Amino acid sequence: MSLPTEFARIARHFRPLAGVGALGLADDAALFDPPPGVQLVLAADAMVAGVHFLPDDPPDLVARKLLRTNLSDLAAMGADPLGYLLTVSVPRAATDAWFAAFAAGLAADQAEFGLTLLGGDTTSTPGPVSLSLTILGTVPPGEALRRNGARPGDEVWVSGTIGDGALGLLAAQGRLADPNGFLAGRYRLPRPRLALGRGLRGVATACLDVSDGLVQDLGHLCRAGKLAAVIEQQLVPISEAAAALGGGHVTRCLTGGDDYELAFAAPVARAAAVMAAGQAAGVRVTRIGYFVAGDPAVRVMKADGVQLRLASAGWDHFA
Amino acid sequence: MSLPTEFARIARHFRPLAGVGALGLADDAALFDPPPGVQLVLAADAMVAGVHFLPDDPPDLVARKLLRTNLSDLAAMGADPLGYLLTVSVPRAATDAWFAAFAAGLAADQAEFGLTLLGGDTTSTPGPVSLSLTILGTVPPGEALRRNGARPGDEVWVSGTIGDGALGLLAAQGRLADPNGFLAGRYRLPRPRLALGRGLRGVATACLDVSDGLVQDLGHLCRAGKLAAVIEQQLVPISEAAAALGGGHVTRCLTGGDDYELAFAAPVARAAAVMAAGQAAGVRVTRIGYFVAGDPAVRVMKADGVQLRLASAGWDHFA
Repeated sequence: MSLPTEFARIARHFRPLAGVGALGLADDAALFDPPPGVQLVLAADAMVAGVHFLPDDPPDLVARKLLRTNLSDLAAMGADPLGYLLTVSVPRAATDAWFAAFAAGLAADQAEFGLTLLGGDTTSTPGPVSLSLTILGTVPPGEALRRNGARPGDEVWVSGTIGDGALGLLAAQGRLADPNGFLAGRYRLPRPRLALGRGLRGVATACLDVSDGLVQDLGHLCRAGKLAAVIEQQLVPISEAAAALGGGHVTRCLTGGDDYELAFAAPVARAAAVMAAGQAAGVRVTRIGYFVAGDPAVRVMKADGVQLRLASAGWDHFA
Repeated sequence: MSLPTEFARIARHFRPLAGVGALGLADDAALFDPPPGVQLVLAADAMVAGVHFLPDDPPDLVARKLLRTNLSDLAAMGADPLGYLLTVSVPRAATDAWFAAFAAGLAADQAEFGLTLLGGDTTSTPGPVSLSLTILGTVPPGEALRRNGARPGDEVWVSGTIGDGALGLLAAQGRLADPNGFLAGRYRLPRPRLALGRGLRGVATACLDVSDGLVQDLGHLCRAGKLAAVIEQQLVPISEAAAALGGGHVTRCLTGGDDYELAFAAPVARAAAVMAAGQAAGVRVTRIGYFVAGDPAVRVMKADGVQLRLASAGWDHFA
């Protein structure tokens, strides 16, 4: 009795990724004992070819980006990765080589970030490749970073550099100079800031990951905390590659998506603790502004003290 | 500061569905304490318009089918529902009314089956509507129903009637008479057998849900248990609506997908317990054959004792 292609592929490519609780991907569901003494953290993100990645992006990088965007949500909560479930909808013509490369990308990142595959589903689609991943993590009780804890006077911090993701998309499309491929690499392979997220437990008062554009995402912290943020544009950290493009991309950097850096709030008195957390995680952290009382809003101030006008704060799937 | 359309939709349509741990869908992830003294059960299924449902199926029924196919996986494990995460990728032109109807379907089934929305993601797609749902359930430690426990001599049982899903697809497409809409209803709105699954804990030795065709799915029980199954075709329960179509659909009923009934194994000595579990759950249960030692295979025997030849055992996305 031979296995249908669908299940042969699952056995060949995905079963080697399965960990404790996955039951070898041979059951209707995963089954496991929750680790004692932790809270569970669960997030899900979808990615569609032509929207979240380029249709001809290498499948291993697509898989890693899918896993990493979800890991970035765990980082934003200060959580540790445990496992994930994955649904993959691909054209019927998808080759075995596609699945092999896709699984190889997952395997590489499972090893790097310490989590395993728990389950999922593989189906065909008449449309573009559509992926969905649900990630499961843990956090010590009461220590999760939330979006709603910022207070007036807290400072606004970001990790890494801002804007590379959006510039990297243009670079990957050949629409922007990217001599060493740094920007395209930042678009295709985000670096979830898990160690930093962990280090910010008890330090940050609010946190999220920047996925839809810094200004728009800071707006979520403002709405959740019922306050406003003032950002000093010249403090926003820009990569050397972005700086080399000249000053024409300020708006794109502030409102473009796909950074997967952390943006967070911390009281002034904890600035040293924030710097220490960044150092321990090997990630640059930069203070870019502060929160103030007021209706939710994000104001970006130019070096001349005049507010920068932005037509859009960030990415909206349905604008 | 106005919400981007994407987040306004989440707030309007999905936030009312959010339960304990969902943090109002306003954070990067859900956060909750695992219930004490249980094992967690996790499954994920994807559905794509034109593959798993008809593009013009009403959005509320699509949502309920998505939730129910996942609930069916919990039923197959003997698990109780707890919550779910959902990713929705729809064309940019999708209307607010579409989201409202989709969410209304989820609300109806949340109330019926006792679970809440934990999180997810809403994106656009240049292709067909692509949905993915991850379901979370619980089961008493060690009591989950597995696929691998059938032993030679155990009997093969199924719940409900077999084949209505595949016939219902034809009916929904107007290719088959379906005077009272029963068959199309079975295709569009499966009934996850949660109460029966619970009742089979400690009774069934192996179990799964029939989603890709009875013969193919029984093959999974055979492979997992390293044995063969003999099915008596005339014992396979067929609905009145299917029977009214005459005898021309035997193969379709045995190998068609979308039944979402349970197929399970139980020792002969537990037949009364199986019947009692069915009665308690209000679900018909029918013995259709037995397991025998041998290489994994499913043999369907006709009333004349001759084996029925099947060109395909069931649905394969990549055949």
